[in-house]
Amino acid sequence: MNEIADLEQARVILAAQPFSALLGARLTAFGEGEAVLEVDIREELLQQYGFVHGGVLGYAADNALTFAAGTVAGAGLITAGFTIDYLRPARGEVLRARARVVRAGRTRVVARCDLSTVEGGGAPALCAVAQGTIAVRQAA
Amino acid sequence: MNEIADLEQARVILAAQPFSALLGARLTAFGEGEAVLEVDIREELLQQYGFVHGGVLGYAADNALTFAAGTVAGAGLITAGFTIDYLRPARGEVLRARARVVRAGRTRVVARCDLSTVEGGGAPALCAVAQGTIAVRQAA
Amino acid sequence: MNEIADLEQARVILAAQPFSALLGARLTAFGEGEAVLEVDIREELLQQYGFVHGGVLGYAADNALTFAAGTVAGAGLITAGFTIDYLRPARGEVLRARARVVRAGRTRVVARCDLSTVEGGGAPALCAVAQGTIAVRQAA
Amino acid sequence: MNEIADLEQARVILAAQPFSALLGARLTAFGEGEAVLEVDIREELLQQYGFVHGGVLGYAADNALTFAAGTVAGAGLITAGFTIDYLRPARGEVLRARARVVRAGRTRVVARCDLSTVEGGGAPALCAVAQGTIAVRQAA
Repeated sequence: MNEIADLEQARVILAAQPFSALLGARLTAFGEGEAVLEVDIREELLQQYGFVHGGVLGYAADNALTFAAGTVAGAGLITAGFTIDYLRPARGEVLRARARVVRAGRTRVVARCDLSTVEGGGAPALCAVAQGTIAVRQAA
Repeated sequence: MNEIADLEQARVILAAQPFSALLGARLTAFGEGEAVLEVDIREELLQQYGFVHGGVLGYAADNALTFAAGTVAGAGLITAGFTIDYLRPARGEVLRARARVVRAGRTRVVARCDLSTVEGGGAPALCAVAQGTIAVRQAA
Repeated sequence: MNEIADLEQARVILAAQPFSALLGARLTAFGEGEAVLEVDIREELLQQYGFVHGGVLGYAADNALTFAAGTVAGAGLITAGFTIDYLRPARGEVLRARARVVRAGRTRVVARCDLSTVEGGGAPALCAVAQGTIAVRQAA
Repeated sequence: MNEIADLEQARVILAAQPFSALLGARLTAFGEGEAVLEVDIREELLQQYGFVHGGVLGYAADNALTFAAGTVAGAGLITAGFTIDYLRPARGEVLRARARVVRAGRTRVVARCDLSTVEGGGAPALCAVAQGTIAVRQAA
């Protein structure tokens, strides 16, 4: 990613990721160190017990962390890695990944992400937490 | 998962995961503490630069780690969490995740995973490494 | 640890850890899902550049995470593992690790930790963040 | 660290870390992507149950990972972060952390570490595994 100006531009980048299109991801917030990515939960995203597959949660964490970094780092960003801990089976209508930058360094951005599921008008249920590092590619 | 006897039974479980079907994942090895999961790389699995999306690598790591645990733990398994470090952009024809159990405890199994891409008849190119924990549900 | 009633009892447990005594750690808060552990920074705790050694930060994260879990889980606790990301060189008078439980399950507690240094009356400088899992040993 | 030529030079750097001196750490191997760090287990390094404190294992993983990176990266190195999973209580005479570089990139080195305890002439008992990233500071 390069110098993402605002939510509209971030959405253009997300739309350019075929895998995000396959999963049906959307960005609902982007700015000031934070990004929120949502995925409507559907049959295709589940595992054998009927819960959202851990791989979907991992995708959402990875992408939300990197977009959050994109709100503060202007140069090219590459996700360096992340850790995710699953808290409870994920079920509901929408999976929401809210990531926030913890520290924006010159070469690395560290961020955290809360993953929740939302069902009807109920309160979000936290289903996983993640922490990751995004590398900032230096301009030549 | 419950008491996976062999590769054939593991494949039945994988086939019961709609998200694995969506990604086109297959198991090519299963037994003695090790599992190998492969995904054919296609346009739908990429990010905006033409490389395999990190979320696909995360999925493959998560699932390979859990299947590796399934070779040694008989009770119900739940992936508790994992860490992934990306090493280089992933491109090629096939993504291969090879996971191996490091330690099988009574309540937790710890495993590591190497993720590589394969292109033609060339040597696999290591593109990410992961380490994770799978919780063993105790029988009542 | 077993059923820690309050800060006073938590301090007794900390005092029973020879390594915590060697480092000079103290607990300054304990309760309601949160624990704060502090270490006075002294020459013996540094690395070759004059900053606090990463191993000291790792120790503080590990112990603060486990004590935070001790505020919500009554049975025997064992730290299963944790991830730490260093944000900036740690220097100052006091290292403070503040851990908070994210989710207290029946068999696992997940917590996060912010590590800061404090210098004089200044604001704490965040120097590392961690996320970890504490296993709850089931009573027989 | 800067351009570590060999084991002797690596030992000079380790000796310059007051915290490593406090713990009594020594390097027993250094070169070709691998470093081995050992600590004699003594009362001062234990937790309340008589096992080696997790913080000591974290220290050994952190330092071994960074020294392993020092065998392949010439510029200034900074540990960016690591993940550790504890496998079993650590007890014995010597704690040994063997780290190996997985991938040496231009700006980041990723390495893994196996932590074992050794008792008498017995086989090492694996007690923890770690994976970490070391940032390579670019020359100006």
